[in-house]
Order: sequence, then C-alpha cells, then structure tokens
Amino acid sequence: MPCYRLTLAYDGTDFAGWQAQSAASGARTVQGVLEQALSRLAGGERVVVVGAGRTDAGVHALGQVASFRLEREMAAGALARALNGLLPPDLRVRDAAPAPAGFDARRSALSKLYRYELDTGPVRLPQRRRVAGHVPWRLDEAGVAEAAALFLGRRDFAATASSGGSATSTVRTITRSEAVFSDGPGAGRVLTYEVEASGFLRKMVRSLVGGLVAVGRGQRTVADLRRALEAGDRRLWPPPAEAHGLTLVRVDYEPQVLA
Amino acid sequence: MPCYRLTLAYDGTDFAGWQAQSAASGARTVQGVLEQALSRLAGGERVVVVGAGRTDAGVHALGQVASFRLEREMAAGALARALNGLLPPDLRVRDAAPAPAGFDARRSALSKLYRYELDTGPVRLPQRRRVAGHVPWRLDEAGVAEAAALFLGRRDFAATASSGGSATSTVRTITRSEAVFSDGPGAGRVLTYEVEASGFLRKMVRSLVGGLVAVGRGQRTVADLRRALEAGDRRLWPPPAEAHGLTLVRVDYEPQVLA
Repeated sequence: MPCYRLTLAYDGTDFAGWQAQSAASGARTVQGVLEQALSRLAGGERVVVVGAGRTDAGVHALGQVASFRLEREMAAGALARALNGLLPPDLRVRDAAPAPAGFDARRSALSKLYRYELDTGPVRLPQRRRVAGHVPWRLDEAGVAEAAALFLGRRDFAATASSGGSATSTVRTITRSEAVFSDGPGAGRVLTYEVEASGFLRKMVRSLVGGLVAVGRGQRTVADLRRALEAGDRRLWPPPAEAHGLTLVRVDYEPQVLA
Repeated sequence: MPCYRLTLAYDGTDFAGWQAQSAASGARTVQGVLEQALSRLAGGERVVVVGAGRTDAGVHALGQVASFRLEREMAAGALARALNGLLPPDLRVRDAAPAPAGFDARRSALSKLYRYELDTGPVRLPQRRRVAGHVPWRLDEAGVAEAAALFLGRRDFAATASSGGSATSTVRTITRSEAVFSDGPGAGRVLTYEVEASGFLRKMVRSLVGGLVAVGRGQRTVADLRRALEAGDRRLWPPPAEAHGLTLVRVDYEPQVLA
C-alpha cells in the first residue's frame, strides 16, 4: 500500500485537538476531519492518519506532519489539491509527498519545533486573541531569557508534565530554547519563545512558558525553577500558559525518510 | 455634558462594519455594540458614538477613535474598565480619556493610518485567514514599491472610490504610502502596506492595494495606474483587495484637542 506524508497548517481554535475521539463524543478533531476527507477521496476506504505531534485543543500548526496509507496510488499534487477542496478553511494541506514504506510521522520524527507567542500589556488585542497568549504584566526580559537557557540540554522534565501523560520516561533533550522580545502591535512587548526537542511530554511546552512568565513577573527565580526540575515535582511548577499561544512550527526527519 | 474619547481595538471578522444599522437589520456593528454597552453603563441613557473611520465589514482596528457625550461625568479609567467588562472579546477599549467640549472623533481627526497585510504563497494559512488577505502569486516587489510611491501627494482618487460614496470632492492627500515585503510564517512573502492621509474615500485603501497587486503580478504597469487616476475612471482600476487584510492602525489629532 502506497504511503504518503502531508504537511499541514491549522488554526486550532475550533478543533478539540489533533487526536480523533469516539464518534459518540461529537468532538471536531484535526485527525478526524482529515481522515473523513481522505476516506471520501479514497472512495470510502477507511484511512488512519498518524500525526507527528498530538496537539491539544486550541493549539495551532504551521508544519504538522501526518502519514497514512492508501490502497491505490494517487499523484501527490492531485491529492493535496483534492484535499484542500474538501477540507474546511481552518485546516490546509501545505504539501503532500509520497513516503517510503513504513514511514510513520510520529515515530520517524527526529525533532519538533514549537513556538509560543505571548502578548503583554494592559489590554488583550482582539485580533491576537486566537493566536497569542496574554498577560497584563511587564516581564523582566533578561530574567525570561535566563530561564529559557535553563531548559537547554538533557533533563528530567517530570515537573513540567501534565498528570495524564503516558510516557515511561520523563527525560527529554531540548536542543533549542530561545526567548525573544519585540514591540507588538499594541502597547506591550511580545514574547516569542521557540523550543525544539526530539520529543516533549504532555503539556510540557505550555508549562515551560508558565515557568518563563513566573520568572518574568518575579514570582519565581531561575533557581526556583531549577530546584523544581531537580525535585521532579509538578506542585512546585507554575501553572501552564494558555493553549492558543502555541504553534507546532516544524517537524524534522532524516533526509532519507523524505526521499 | 462631559465629552469622552475612546481608543478601540477590534477584530472586524464578526462585525458588519463600524456603522450602526437599523435595529430591524439585526446587523452586529461596532458602533451598535459600543452604544449598547455605554447606554447600559449610563443607566439607560441613549448614547450616540462617532467613530473616526467608518470601517467596512471585516476590517479591523488597532487604534480606532470614538467620541461621545454622557449626561453625568465618569472617571475615564473606571469607564474603560467597566466597558471592557461589558464588551465582547472581539472589541476592546484600549484607552479612555476626557475630551474637550465639541470634540468629534471624525471631524477633529488630522490623519488616519491604515495597514494592509497580504500573504502570498500557494496556500492560505488558516491562522492568518482573518487578519491577512491572500493571493497565490509571487509579486514583483520593486514594481509594488514603485506603484506605492505613485499614490503619494495630492491627487484625485475618484478611480479608486466605490460607487456608493457620498464625498463631494474626490481629491485626497496621501502623506505616506509604503509597501514593505518580509518573510511570512509560511512559504510566501508578506506585503505590508501602510498608507496615511487626512481622509480616504470609500473602499479607497482596498482599491489602492488592488492596484499594487495588479502591478505586482504584471497585469498593470505603474503607468497604467497613473493613467487610470488621471482619467478618474473606476472601470480602469483593478478590483479591490479583500476587506479582512485591512486595519485602522491610528488616528492623529492636534495635541490641544487631546488636552
């Protein structure tokens, strides 16, 4: 059965996350909407899609990667066009390509890059409310940058994981953790945080941003966060940032997997 | 009667424009929603709000200015907080201030700055679909910049006005007209066009952007646009750009009017 890889962008606002739920739940998920469209294209065949990142409700994607197999071969360009004709405007196929047998968007992934946008300032701007988090405080920018640097490297991130996760190990290696501030469209500064790792625990990125905010507003020191990580204790970690500031930007694979 | 000035931000997507319509129309307008909230705050008093720019359906604001009078005086800070408690999340008061008697947000305005964001690239990104226009073409960036410069200065802009306008003169003076390209969140470049003038004709900014796009994709030359302006003929002008890429960024007043 021919295997395919899709690169997807979505506005996560009106999706109950990536992962398909039971039909009885009635939840609109990215995986569910995509599988329905693919099944329709494939003449009713049941198609199962694997996503590289199981994004939560409200989380967006610019470069989510999905894999699936079809019984009959289709030209990738025609597949992308036909899918975009069937999909709603909040879910788009940016690219479609044939993939080698056994390609699995999740298991084959080398690393994922997430971006979090956080607006600061007295008022939440309406045109940013779906794509950026918001806090009304002025943040200590040097402190936030120092906290971001703390997360780099191989560490046990148990303190930042949500309790519902099923990971057997909570050790992860973060290869990029950068907090950059810029002037926003409103009166406040905008924090853009980019974090890359081979894998993340459940709600981990939002917890990391929660940690940055707590340092930025002086509720925690970088040393407090280090101690919480070392203790592996969720109760010591500040609350996570809102889902809708988060975007899955890119998923990387070995070049030969994309051949 | 004490006079007030509000600075407003809104996501125009779910509004039928600025201007209040008859109650029978059922249209949700920025002016209508704001007047209702003010009337409620003022204990049922009928409040009439004047907006600096009568933005069309789908057009956003970061710095729309509105003026109104109340029978009784209220502290401006308390007014802003109370209004934001009553207004929906797609309409926010960024600032409230007392204004001198006779202040009229529209008539007292010296100039308005509009910004248009246009994404290019093969696929319209879902998270940009409410705040940016989109064309699938690669644009000639030097040509677009040259066309933007053509619009500068005092000219008759009749060719760019929609037929429904009620302006007695179609001469306007553009003091800023800048097209800047940057890398976007997707594969394509993003055109950001900023235009400032003491006043604009109806749908004029979207028409100007339509002109830029036509030059950028090679359908018109800058000389064609100049001739269309000189002829004052709407039929010679390319179609306007989509409403939802447009934002009213700022309205400027004489300092003494804001005292």
